[in-house]
Amino acid sequence: MNFRMIKYTLGWLLLFEAAFFFLPLVTGIIYLEKATFSFLFSILAAGGIGALLVLKKPSSTKLYSRDGFALVALSWIILSLFGALPFIFSGATKSFVDALFETVSGFTTTGASIFKEVESLPKCILLWRSFTNWIGGMGVLVFIMAFLPLGGAHNMNIMKAESPGPSVSKLVPRVKTTALILYVIYIVMTVIQFVLLLCGGANFFDAICISFSTAGTGGFGIKNDSFGSYSTYIQVVTTVFMLLFSINFTSYYLLLRGKIKDALNTEVKVFVGIVVAAIAIITFDIVNMYGSVSEALKHSAFTVSTIISTTGFATDNFDLWPNFSRTIIVLLMFIGACAGSTGGGIKVSRILILIKGMARELKMLIHPKQVKKISIDSRKVDHEVVRSVNAYIVCYVAIFLVSVLILSFEETDLVTNFTAVAATINNIGPGLAGVGPASNYSAFSVISKLTLTFDMLAGRLELFPMLVLFNPSTWKK
Amino acid sequence: MNFRMIKYTLGWLLLFEAAFFFLPLVTGIIYLEKATFSFLFSILAAGGIGALLVLKKPSSTKLYSRDGFALVALSWIILSLFGALPFIFSGATKSFVDALFETVSGFTTTGASIFKEVESLPKCILLWRSFTNWIGGMGVLVFIMAFLPLGGAHNMNIMKAESPGPSVSKLVPRVKTTALILYVIYIVMTVIQFVLLLCGGANFFDAICISFSTAGTGGFGIKNDSFGSYSTYIQVVTTVFMLLFSINFTSYYLLLRGKIKDALNTEVKVFVGIVVAAIAIITFDIVNMYGSVSEALKHSAFTVSTIISTTGFATDNFDLWPNFSRTIIVLLMFIGACAGSTGGGIKVSRILILIKGMARELKMLIHPKQVKKISIDSRKVDHEVVRSVNAYIVCYVAIFLVSVLILSFEETDLVTNFTAVAATINNIGPGLAGVGPASNYSAFSVISKLTLTFDMLAGRLELFPMLVLFNPSTWKK
Repeated sequence: MNFRMIKYTLGWLLLFEAAFFFLPLVTGIIYLEKATFSFLFSILAAGGIGALLVLKKPSSTKLYSRDGFALVALSWIILSLFGALPFIFSGATKSFVDALFETVSGFTTTGASIFKEVESLPKCILLWRSFTNWIGGMGVLVFIMAFLPLGGAHNMNIMKAESPGPSVSKLVPRVKTTALILYVIYIVMTVIQFVLLLCGGANFFDAICISFSTAGTGGFGIKNDSFGSYSTYIQVVTTVFMLLFSINFTSYYLLLRGKIKDALNTEVKVFVGIVVAAIAIITFDIVNMYGSVSEALKHSAFTVSTIISTTGFATDNFDLWPNFSRTIIVLLMFIGACAGSTGGGIKVSRILILIKGMARELKMLIHPKQVKKISIDSRKVDHEVVRSVNAYIVCYVAIFLVSVLILSFEETDLVTNFTAVAATINNIGPGLAGVGPASNYSAFSVISKLTLTFDMLAGRLELFPMLVLFNPSTWKK
Repeated sequence: MNFRMIKYTLGWLLLFEAAFFFLPLVTGIIYLEKATFSFLFSILAAGGIGALLVLKKPSSTKLYSRDGFALVALSWIILSLFGALPFIFSGATKSFVDALFETVSGFTTTGASIFKEVESLPKCILLWRSFTNWIGGMGVLVFIMAFLPLGGAHNMNIMKAESPGPSVSKLVPRVKTTALILYVIYIVMTVIQFVLLLCGGANFFDAICISFSTAGTGGFGIKNDSFGSYSTYIQVVTTVFMLLFSINFTSYYLLLRGKIKDALNTEVKVFVGIVVAAIAIITFDIVNMYGSVSEALKHSAFTVSTIISTTGFATDNFDLWPNFSRTIIVLLMFIGACAGSTGGGIKVSRILILIKGMARELKMLIHPKQVKKISIDSRKVDHEVVRSVNAYIVCYVAIFLVSVLILSFEETDLVTNFTAVAATINNIGPGLAGVGPASNYSAFSVISKLTLTFDMLAGRLELFPMLVLFNPSTWKK
């Protein structure tokens, strides 16, 4: 373990977080809010400790695989602990566990809230919530890497640990440049959505917050009814951008370079196929609830996009929809977005690998002599990746079940507990029943909230970093 | 595909089934029941068609892997179609789908019933229900193999397809002898339970039916309240035997040969550990519902045993227990019994392999240079087996989700649908809510019943045979 390098990176992380706090600080100053001071104190806390940690540059910047995993997990925990400070300093909540839950929910782009209503919160706090969605969407260490010469050649181990999906591909030979390209795409797309929202009549503040939350597929809303009261235009724009932010950013890079065929890879096609099918089926199922096809289509498209992209906005209480639609929504929760996007869930590419692995096994039972490797987009999938995806799923189920078991100490129904875990581990936000779009997570006990907090972090970091961090053998020599 | 050999084996299967019908026939004669005739007709139907099919012995008895899988799946479907006849002939139900559901539920040792109450059914029908549990428990083709010189050296492919667990081990070099040994153990254990029940005051008929259903870990009861009204002695004896029948029969063979250390392998130890832990936790959780520790312990032990063994009897309505206990029960549903037992579920050994695979992956992230094979009982687990277990889990989840989706057309709640699929694919019987121990499966639509029927067969045959049978490429040259 390169403890010095880990300490040094965490220092930079806190300095960056201090810098992030300036945006809500400025917001608070503009709106002359008392809560502004909470960001000032937070800047001092994060900046001060960060400055102390970066004083001494480590002699070696080498980060091995396990260092990368542990560092990423640790970074997200530290980031969240400090990110929770403004909620406490401003008095938005008195419970540190609640503040932590809210912050982790923000950074992990979950969007599950412990606030019973959000409209009474200061604007600078609302902006901070949406901003955490944006920061967490693309990964904060990837961000730091893009701007700082950190771990040199070993950056890849950080990127592997923080980026979503079964395997990470570098767009260009240098990891640092890859990170930069991804962030530029991210920023440009966020700005486009922001401008489109402004054009549609959204006010400046709303447009910023919505764009942040959509880009990170986070889902923190600034209205009590989430998206119900926004105009159809704003709902439609957001629907489109939720989907756009769910697609592998590599595809956009390939598109820009004119490689259209490579950009439209199997994962993207399958993702689009699932989205279209789900929207069509749900529209058909709910049409008589809404009177017109266009209205049903609007709600269906918004809900499918918000769930599969794991954003978590809501235009209507989909928990009141028929059983069939609700079951599809629960299934979509688990599928999630494409790898390499800001969305959560198991990821379409993982599911593709799993299904292809199953099909191969079946083929081998029927024709034992035709042993074949799995291939996607006519490229063979590494045996390592297949094995890792299988282990991922087992970890996923294990964490899922233990979480449901811990939540079952609550006297809430099984659907609430099951979908609460599903909505947090997949970084969605709302579930069904007690945690449906019309409800929130405030009623859970401290133990349950901490469990769900862990699930959000585990889900966002794709399980292994958290497990490596908490594995004693990581810390042995 | 060796169609002639498949036809020939199916013929013998029907002849054996005709022979099986004699037991309820005799029962019906003893009790002078009108329903006796239904077994006479069934004997004529199964025996007649069976005799026609075995007229011509095939020139080649070779059965390849896919032949084995397809034959096993086909056998169970044919067995169930003919096994359903007595229910129709006797007028116990008018719906063939219901009769098929009940029969598949019997042979697959699920024990889910479409009868709202069973006490009014003729005794010969009740005996047939319990007898199907017993026949299905050990596998009917294994039974035929034990007594007939069928496929010669290729018997192994049938045994692989019909026996539960990730890998099949032959006790002795000859497959036929292995099958015979397993059946002798099965019969002896059934007789011991029968005698113990008689000694405890159970009447002859009840003792036979209970022993059959317990041995197969089937769970068809002959009382409306399942096991609620039996004496504590009978409940305790049944608790013990449900667990005994959930343990790998190979262990008994090893015990008989004095290899105690080999008999108590990791799977058995983990199984016992889970059972003891679950009983203790649930007892603690429900003790204030029952007043005394002994009463709570009795119900807890019975329920844990009935669920993890996937039998499905009930002494009390565990759906009324606290959330935590109910969640544990749902988890136990998925774990299931040991491989090579009569129990269902995912099987302890598969779960062991999955967890070890996950642990290895985690170790490799931390110490990338220490690549190790998984080993259980200090024997290395074949890479083939690990891959097959992973594919099994993906199939399992896929079938599970599609089934829940189909069931969601019903306006029953999600817990009912989810646990109905869990209780059928794991061959348990009762679930929670609408399919809880105090309810039954009669309310479902035909589509749902057929889906659950498929799930029972897929679960009992461990997915692959059914998937091979319905895969078009199986039937290509």
